[in-house]
Amino acid sequence: MSSNGVTYPAGFRAAGVACGLKKNNALDLAVVISDVPATAAAVFTRNVVKGHSLQVSRRNVQAGTARVCIINSGCANACMGQRGWDDAIAITQMVAEKVGCAPEEVLPSSTGVIGVPLPMENLSFGIAAACAHASPAGGADAARAIMTTDTHPKEVHACFMLEGREIHLGGMAKGSGMIHPDMATMISVLTTDAAIEREALDAALREAVSSTYNRISVDGDTSVCDQVTILANGQAGNSPIVKGTAAFDTFVDVLTGMARELAKMLAADGEGATKLLTITIQHAPSDHDAHLIAAAIAKSPLCKTAAYGQDANWGRLMTAAGYSGAMFDPEKVDVYIGDIQVCQNGVAKDFDEEQALKVLSEKEVEYTLDFKQGEGFDQMYTCDMTHEYITINGSYRS
Amino acid sequence: MSSNGVTYPAGFRAAGVACGLKKNNALDLAVVISDVPATAAAVFTRNVVKGHSLQVSRRNVQAGTARVCIINSGCANACMGQRGWDDAIAITQMVAEKVGCAPEEVLPSSTGVIGVPLPMENLSFGIAAACAHASPAGGADAARAIMTTDTHPKEVHACFMLEGREIHLGGMAKGSGMIHPDMATMISVLTTDAAIEREALDAALREAVSSTYNRISVDGDTSVCDQVTILANGQAGNSPIVKGTAAFDTFVDVLTGMARELAKMLAADGEGATKLLTITIQHAPSDHDAHLIAAAIAKSPLCKTAAYGQDANWGRLMTAAGYSGAMFDPEKVDVYIGDIQVCQNGVAKDFDEEQALKVLSEKEVEYTLDFKQGEGFDQMYTCDMTHEYITINGSYRS
Repeated sequence: MSSNGVTYPAGFRAAGVACGLKKNNALDLAVVISDVPATAAAVFTRNVVKGHSLQVSRRNVQAGTARVCIINSGCANACMGQRGWDDAIAITQMVAEKVGCAPEEVLPSSTGVIGVPLPMENLSFGIAAACAHASPAGGADAARAIMTTDTHPKEVHACFMLEGREIHLGGMAKGSGMIHPDMATMISVLTTDAAIEREALDAALREAVSSTYNRISVDGDTSVCDQVTILANGQAGNSPIVKGTAAFDTFVDVLTGMARELAKMLAADGEGATKLLTITIQHAPSDHDAHLIAAAIAKSPLCKTAAYGQDANWGRLMTAAGYSGAMFDPEKVDVYIGDIQVCQNGVAKDFDEEQALKVLSEKEVEYTLDFKQGEGFDQMYTCDMTHEYITINGSYRS
Repeated sequence: MSSNGVTYPAGFRAAGVACGLKKNNALDLAVVISDVPATAAAVFTRNVVKGHSLQVSRRNVQAGTARVCIINSGCANACMGQRGWDDAIAITQMVAEKVGCAPEEVLPSSTGVIGVPLPMENLSFGIAAACAHASPAGGADAARAIMTTDTHPKEVHACFMLEGREIHLGGMAKGSGMIHPDMATMISVLTTDAAIEREALDAALREAVSSTYNRISVDGDTSVCDQVTILANGQAGNSPIVKGTAAFDTFVDVLTGMARELAKMLAADGEGATKLLTITIQHAPSDHDAHLIAAAIAKSPLCKTAAYGQDANWGRLMTAAGYSGAMFDPEKVDVYIGDIQVCQNGVAKDFDEEQALKVLSEKEVEYTLDFKQGEGFDQMYTCDMTHEYITINGSYRS
């Protein structure tokens, strides 16, 4: 295979180039091109403040087909007024000219600092280079070009059989800070060579996002540029997948699994993180309560610094559950750090601190709270909060 | 005056002693005693999980009078089941015996690590010592004894004239981490020698708390032991203050001013903080929207690390406003850092970075967002988020 990410499926080309938006000649402009018009769907940030590139994408994706995703890092193109909108439109026009499609078939995304104008001369150069160099081998460069404070690029792929044909899916994502659920909390592009109806693709994307991208938190902040886009170009040659079929269910399962892998990569690579934390809430009064509790723990600086300090301070988990807004009886709650039970029926339970330290020193740690008072379930992914998080975010613009 | 804190009003004695709950023989047990039964009111955490000492206080204060506040640091007496409740009751009994009052006139508070039992032998010794040593000069020791990760004790006092008599008010507070509004987010004891009816005292306390203690945030976390108590012993000799009078309004104003000073001290001494941040939201669609926005900014790690880095990254303020849950038109918003306007009508405005750096390097920084779309107002106090915050909370139990 030529690529393990967005160009893993047939009929996609990609490139990542440097056009001077980032320092040190780092890759900062990515393009993903479908050889033919692809069915397209996307989910966007629910932030009231929305970046201009995102707003153009949101308008263009409504037609249901697209050819190109173009993503720059280094500048969010947000809070720039009419100029920001004009710049985003100009990007779609430049890309359309190079690729040979309509500007409305181009979905632009921008990520980086807010309130700074896009340097359009650099973008003009970069777009020409990226479109010229786009190839089936370019997925890895594209994944690198969308990074902001990510420490490594994030790519996934998957395949399954349908009607005797192999269906391929690929994806990339970036996002390391300003991450919290309630939307597609980062920038991600997913691709597939499956043929699938627009309505089915949209439903599949929303279902996959709800339990993956919408279940990660790095710092409780959410950005104005969050966007997950999927392009399905039909090059696998299957008959179009429609909702309510076994093929649709399989597609959703595979897409969700791929999205979960990307989401966990994002959480594990959270700014300054040393470990991935999985928060599992079982038997809460309702799914909604379970989600409130999981989200409160996932965004609690005290829970996250304790994880960094490898401190089995489970009282902070109980405290976060208590202020989450969920209603529950605290005297039924069991708490586990890994497999070690540290609290039973809301009361401290003796445990081996040495054994707990061993569990907490791993790269992946699971906190499980069993409320024993219903069927509510939720699971979130987050990371610890470290000195390095402060260093990164105390000097982001400099 | 013998004291500038809780023993500033007439007829109050206090002490702070060391009984081995903290390391290094630090003061860890405070007592505040009114010479006569005092009218009493209190507000408590809204956390679903509540400490046992707090639950006993909550029960006892319902009678409307009290003699003693007893507060230990070093151990929260929370998540201990029946034993925690029994220990809190035992504390009230020991104090009552030493002071010569009913156990129900004692309001206990505990703050510190959750899930660890109180060492009752130490408390027995400490209570005897504290009650024996309580004096009108003991306010400062009491303020020191309630500290957890606070770097300095916090005391305030105020006075005003009523019916030709001088009315005195005093107070102390502790709280440095796990602080966020939605309740009385710390432990604080307020005292006054005013005579005031119970209903009026309760109303005055709730009004004072709403714009002060409930408007500070250090890290978005809230504890299971938060409690603000006020004792009014009538020793000033005024005729009892009742609601709906000028005297009541004055009392509320003075009490609120004092509470605001304590609240700002708490925010400025937030764990690891280098500066106090005041977030002012003007002309939002409603007060509720204004509060959602102020709270989102006050708890945003990205806004708080930018302040630490003295980075005029106002895009993070806009972003936090955008995900706060408030609805507003982003294209009307003006943003100021100190007096420097950095955003006009939602669009970046050129500003002098050198001048901004100068403002951001001060010990107190004000962020003002003017939404220009209504009369909604809110103001919150918080602090920056620093490397030291991570150090403190990565190793709290050790």
